[in-house]
Amino acid sequence: MPRRSQHSKDELRQLALEAVLVIAERDGSQAVSARKVAQEIGYAPGMLYYLFESIDDLILHANARTLASMIRSLRTAVQRKSPQRALLAMARQYLELAQHNGRRWQLLFEHAMRHDAPVPDWYRQQTDALFRLVEEQLAALAPEKKEKEIQLAARAIWSAVHGVCLLAVTGKLEVGGKVPATRLVDSLVRHYLAGWVASA
Amino acid sequence: MPRRSQHSKDELRQLALEAVLVIAERDGSQAVSARKVAQEIGYAPGMLYYLFESIDDLILHANARTLASMIRSLRTAVQRKSPQRALLAMARQYLELAQHNGRRWQLLFEHAMRHDAPVPDWYRQQTDALFRLVEEQLAALAPEKKEKEIQLAARAIWSAVHGVCLLAVTGKLEVGGKVPATRLVDSLVRHYLAGWVASA
Repeated sequence: MPRRSQHSKDELRQLALEAVLVIAERDGSQAVSARKVAQEIGYAPGMLYYLFESIDDLILHANARTLASMIRSLRTAVQRKSPQRALLAMARQYLELAQHNGRRWQLLFEHAMRHDAPVPDWYRQQTDALFRLVEEQLAALAPEKKEKEIQLAARAIWSAVHGVCLLAVTGKLEVGGKVPATRLVDSLVRHYLAGWVASA
Repeated sequence: MPRRSQHSKDELRQLALEAVLVIAERDGSQAVSARKVAQEIGYAPGMLYYLFESIDDLILHANARTLASMIRSLRTAVQRKSPQRALLAMARQYLELAQHNGRRWQLLFEHAMRHDAPVPDWYRQQTDALFRLVEEQLAALAPEKKEKEIQLAARAIWSAVHGVCLLAVTGKLEVGGKVPATRLVDSLVRHYLAGWVASA
């Protein structure tokens, strides 16, 4: 039921962003729509277009929250650890987040821009911050490596760990028998790093 | 338009399986339904239940075709190569198949059994055959490794390469900037294998 605004514009934005994540967790990432979000916060759908440029803009801002909390949680995971252990801890933490915030995590990765619109710069800065966390540890582990090599390794590790997470949350790891996702993540990070550090 | 059967039961099965893959390629993996398959081959939907136990059974048999052609193509990729090069060639070939048969490949990996029914043994034997291709090369590369270690490594490599493929076919690699999927696959396989072989 639409109601008259008791909230400032900023408060309304926060309410709408929270609603996106609540709907994703409760009904699945596919269920997020302007109508549902408006209903959840008790305003007319038109209100959302006063708050956000588009449904993409709304979802990106909600995903930015998930990203920010992911970055905080990965930062905590690396504290007072050697680079190798820090990278392993981050990978495990990433898997943990994927498994325990499955739908919020799916919204983050399934969302595709409508009409192939480019991802805005402010959002890309946040995804860059996530890669930077990994790159910092790789640079500490192998200070002699070039920046390009470090960037490639960070993306390779992310793709691999992300792959395990995707297979785990969609129940597809089973095709390979009952190997736990944590063992796959550990094996990938450990051996990849050992090979990468040793390579010329 | 339903028509009287001019085909044997086996011919009809082959027609239906081909139709599943045609529909997946043309309209996307989500579009495959008993109604659409029946329409495609010009029979009534009821006919399908004479040919297959269920829609799951039909899709699994169609996916088994994709798997079989994937296995043939990976086998060709490894011919007359050292284990290391064979594993790299298989990984690249897997990426190639994912990128060029995107929707058929998506049907293979997106299909989930209804009501969480177990995957039948005959199908699991085929997925096992895919892992065995990788395990054979790993065993040739490091004959001193235990079977358990080889199985884990095969699944780790598959998850990582599959992760890159999933990110590539869904256009999600871009979050990390413009690193080509082939470079990620190469980096993952090379460094993982080097680290794995060197580990105790």
